[in-house]
Amino acid sequence: MNQLHQSIVAQNIPASSLRAFIPFAEEAKKNGTTVYHLNIGDPDIKMPQVMYDFLRGWNKNPVPYSHSQGEPALINSLLGYYSKIGFPFVQYNNIQVTLGGSEALLWIMLSVCDPGDEIIAFEPYYTNYNSYAVVAQAKIVGITTHIDNGFHLPSREEIEKRITPKTRAILFSNPSNPTGTVYTEEELDMIVDIAREHGLYIVSDEVYREFVYNGSKAISMLKYAQSMPDQVLVVDSMSKRYSLCGARLGCIVSLNTELMSVFLRFGQARLSAGTIGQRVAAKLSEVGDDYFRDIIVEYDKRQKIIVDGMARIDGVVCSKPEGAFYVIVKLPIDDAEDFTKWLLTDFSDNGETVMVAPASGFYNTPGMGKDEIRIAYVLNSEALQRSVEILKKGLEMYKTAREA
Amino acid sequence: MNQLHQSIVAQNIPASSLRAFIPFAEEAKKNGTTVYHLNIGDPDIKMPQVMYDFLRGWNKNPVPYSHSQGEPALINSLLGYYSKIGFPFVQYNNIQVTLGGSEALLWIMLSVCDPGDEIIAFEPYYTNYNSYAVVAQAKIVGITTHIDNGFHLPSREEIEKRITPKTRAILFSNPSNPTGTVYTEEELDMIVDIAREHGLYIVSDEVYREFVYNGSKAISMLKYAQSMPDQVLVVDSMSKRYSLCGARLGCIVSLNTELMSVFLRFGQARLSAGTIGQRVAAKLSEVGDDYFRDIIVEYDKRQKIIVDGMARIDGVVCSKPEGAFYVIVKLPIDDAEDFTKWLLTDFSDNGETVMVAPASGFYNTPGMGKDEIRIAYVLNSEALQRSVEILKKGLEMYKTAREA
Repeated sequence: MNQLHQSIVAQNIPASSLRAFIPFAEEAKKNGTTVYHLNIGDPDIKMPQVMYDFLRGWNKNPVPYSHSQGEPALINSLLGYYSKIGFPFVQYNNIQVTLGGSEALLWIMLSVCDPGDEIIAFEPYYTNYNSYAVVAQAKIVGITTHIDNGFHLPSREEIEKRITPKTRAILFSNPSNPTGTVYTEEELDMIVDIAREHGLYIVSDEVYREFVYNGSKAISMLKYAQSMPDQVLVVDSMSKRYSLCGARLGCIVSLNTELMSVFLRFGQARLSAGTIGQRVAAKLSEVGDDYFRDIIVEYDKRQKIIVDGMARIDGVVCSKPEGAFYVIVKLPIDDAEDFTKWLLTDFSDNGETVMVAPASGFYNTPGMGKDEIRIAYVLNSEALQRSVEILKKGLEMYKTAREA
Repeated sequence: MNQLHQSIVAQNIPASSLRAFIPFAEEAKKNGTTVYHLNIGDPDIKMPQVMYDFLRGWNKNPVPYSHSQGEPALINSLLGYYSKIGFPFVQYNNIQVTLGGSEALLWIMLSVCDPGDEIIAFEPYYTNYNSYAVVAQAKIVGITTHIDNGFHLPSREEIEKRITPKTRAILFSNPSNPTGTVYTEEELDMIVDIAREHGLYIVSDEVYREFVYNGSKAISMLKYAQSMPDQVLVVDSMSKRYSLCGARLGCIVSLNTELMSVFLRFGQARLSAGTIGQRVAAKLSEVGDDYFRDIIVEYDKRQKIIVDGMARIDGVVCSKPEGAFYVIVKLPIDDAEDFTKWLLTDFSDNGETVMVAPASGFYNTPGMGKDEIRIAYVLNSEALQRSVEILKKGLEMYKTAREA
């Protein structure tokens, strides 16, 4: 008789690092405490009106499968979008629609890594990269970046010394989740040089592309796609850009025709992405520039509330995010996981508390980020102002409580 | 310098077996020919009115992520559904919502198989099982079933002699795609005995559960779940049952708590299934029995049109499907792939032709099913009647053309 078997993948696929804290938040709410959620990047901004109207005017019954590559209307709208942001060379077959950026990243790792192969990523990085790597049985090699220089990249030498014969790709998000860092042209040039020299894929996760502050712009890796067509793989998503997280829509953009045909076969295996969401998102071609302009103004304002507010707290170091809607904050405590839990279980201020994300889950190197948290500023200004106040009081009381 | 790498998975993931024929269908349509699609199982039946109304009354903006396990309203509705069909013991944590039955099957294979492990499936089987097996680097061992006995199972000895120390699971769909077979209680008892004796999982793909004819019912493997809680994994889907293919919604039902927690971790890695579709599907608790009664009457009528019509064609053998909306038909020709292509490229009758699915793609054993096609009866009665006529004329002309 065989043993009922669980695979290595089943044994290793990690639980969400926040999951352990959710029951505490639920318990706090049950006890009547208001919890401000600074822990996840689920935007509160409204989706574009043209999408909302289209959704409410839905008139297809039944809801059929879409094409495995993606709904033609959506792919055509995306072509217009990429052309508008400077990449008119992107063709229909360079786009594969996916069920969120998640599916895109999973397929890429499964396609470029055999078990035991390595992917370089700059830590702190988006936690779910670890899950996709487990499924592909690949190893993420985390190169540490630091709060002191706003989590910008280390030197070329630092990066190159981590490359081995098993390295297949360099992976990063830009603008970055969880740091808010937007990489400079010099940094991207360096990555491109390294990838060229060592024969690596560059996987650029650009789901926060529009969310950049100070009148600046994020540079898409598509800028380099024509000069290294087989190496550049861009991951994109409609989730944050159009506040459509729950539509589960993303895409892969690449000029690598062989890999695009591999991705299409992955797409055929799961038939299609969601048809309703795709037709809604296809309306992106009718979304005006003012939609993003207003959002950036709003997030910029929120960012300042968090950064300025946190910086005024004794002993707190807060990097100034250049993009996305996250910031890593270093706290004058030893154990941010304990603090996160304590905020939910042992503290409230006038019946209110906050839930943050301890940053250790975003690091690959054991022990890193233990005194850091990630704050997502996806609440309105008043809620954020109040959250800073609560964190300030919380830190004071926590230090007293833990010293007692 | 490393080579730009493509993984074994990337090299082996198969293209849809129908894909090669789609350009011919598109070409035929461009030339003004009407093509009746008997090749895919995208139902033309309307979704329940209560779901359609809910969708059109959508008022959530933005569309947030759902829970990783699934939208609570949907899970609760599913609990009511399983209770109603005889399984009141199914609890909240026994259900994991997935992006279609596809994602469910992928996660199961990834969780119970390490590379090189084996899954027994009864061929002909749903082609995409091969794709999920490639991703898990597992091997599907196809045990052949035959049209002569309506594709019912071979003897216990036939099955057991294919079990090796690497066998992890027995996988089947019931009612079956592509054969329409509904397994008897004796057959399921046999599978259960084999799984018990050899320590195997039973993966029962029940996405066509309601589609059974002649007043009969399909037996869910949930019937056996309490007596072998760790071994039974049921795959389900809202796609066919509620004509929601494009909503990409399915689920895994199992009493195996360890594996359910693994599936939840897979779920966390991709954040959530689609929120809109889940809230729409949650209305399944308000769908009356008459919805299915009417559908079954309709499919039963369609099935008879195809089966009776095809049986009247010289040399054709047509099994009588007991469920689902597919039937395998054996044709008096050597090469059903060639015939499928010929119907699209070289034939039309009064400007009309049909597209069918050659059955060889549903077999794992090379050379099997070369003279068989699968017909999906998801068109209305008149279209099906006309399709039979076209197939009859097509077969006559094809034989003349190929003999010339």
